[in-house]
Amino acid sequence: MEIDYSNIKVIGFDADDTLWVNETYFRDTEAKFAELLDQYETQNKIDQELFKKEMENLPLFGYGIKGFILSMIETAIELSNERISPKVIQTIIEYGKEMIHKPVELLEGVEQTLEVLSKDYRLIVLTKGDLLDQERKLKQSNLETFFHHVEVMSDKKPKNYRDLLEHLEIDPKHFLMVGNSLKSDVLPVLELGAQAVHIPFHTTWAHEVIQPKKEDTYLHLDHIGQLKEYL
Amino acid sequence: MEIDYSNIKVIGFDADDTLWVNETYFRDTEAKFAELLDQYETQNKIDQELFKKEMENLPLFGYGIKGFILSMIETAIELSNERISPKVIQTIIEYGKEMIHKPVELLEGVEQTLEVLSKDYRLIVLTKGDLLDQERKLKQSNLETFFHHVEVMSDKKPKNYRDLLEHLEIDPKHFLMVGNSLKSDVLPVLELGAQAVHIPFHTTWAHEVIQPKKEDTYLHLDHIGQLKEYL
Repeated sequence: MEIDYSNIKVIGFDADDTLWVNETYFRDTEAKFAELLDQYETQNKIDQELFKKEMENLPLFGYGIKGFILSMIETAIELSNERISPKVIQTIIEYGKEMIHKPVELLEGVEQTLEVLSKDYRLIVLTKGDLLDQERKLKQSNLETFFHHVEVMSDKKPKNYRDLLEHLEIDPKHFLMVGNSLKSDVLPVLELGAQAVHIPFHTTWAHEVIQPKKEDTYLHLDHIGQLKEYL
Repeated sequence: MEIDYSNIKVIGFDADDTLWVNETYFRDTEAKFAELLDQYETQNKIDQELFKKEMENLPLFGYGIKGFILSMIETAIELSNERISPKVIQTIIEYGKEMIHKPVELLEGVEQTLEVLSKDYRLIVLTKGDLLDQERKLKQSNLETFFHHVEVMSDKKPKNYRDLLEHLEIDPKHFLMVGNSLKSDVLPVLELGAQAVHIPFHTTWAHEVIQPKKEDTYLHLDHIGQLKEYL
């Protein structure tokens, strides 16, 4: 089936793992975290317990690195039966600070794609995560000039998109969302009657994994550089 | 000197300690934190070291409870020369979670004032802090309906205000900001040529303490309920 993009006026881009690398840093830190605790448990068990703790804390802490650090600390205390040394806890905090300091690494083709599309469309960024982190990354990315609006969202449920589009006075018929997460960037947007393009990143956080339904219609691309061929 | 508010069309409200209680919870938690560490240092020294750590971490963690928890943990590790027990660190995290769970306590006169002013002015909220926390508090406050726009800002420097007013297409001449912090709510706004009303809260975080210059002209009120007499 051919998808018709002729009504599209505004394109929303997810940021983490759509414009720049993000999930990789979380996976790397998880691996280092598991090494720190290897006297207490297997890597597999440590990964599982950390994920459980993150899910438990998500309603309280939301998305982002600070909540991730706190979940690692709690997991370390629990898995060690409160025997973990304060030095290791300080190391966990340092791992988190290193993540915040990571330079922004743009994905291939992002800059050229935004440059081309910004001539014919209003481009906006819709991202979850920590406000300060996302502002910092956007600034470092040098992509700011391409965007009319940047919104850091506390969540990406249909209601969050609906409120935001209403607030920005964007008709869902005119809106196309581009992102790496089916759960956060594609399906909730389709539910509103807007369109979406899925460009998977090689790594997906377990929390974001989901199966689309048969009737969900969206474009799947391997690479953001292909986007301009369809618009 | 009489201040002229006849041009004002949009009123911005700070949230924490302007619409609802906030700083009190931080002070209470600091006192409990100092008790936890009382075998290592005096309360005064603990307060000082925690504040230093918060200032050191502010560029990385930004404002909000999660960064505060992480700064408490780092301070506890340092002040105890890494002898603090993991159980105490877990207690610190629980203190932070209790802060997040605190019910929203509106300051006296807030609801009536917003109700009256919302008839003649566009009201917006401009707050620092954690995105998720602020959204949660606003929702719990039942004040959402009075506001046309809510902006959680990563900082409240003149540049942040300038960018935001531009984005919302508000002329500084038409803008009045109301808040408890001279440093964050009053002085940066005056610098843009907008107006400001200072309504101090009984407790002010050391980071927000500042002396205004002689030429800074703004209204000082003891109570938000007085605002409608001037507008």
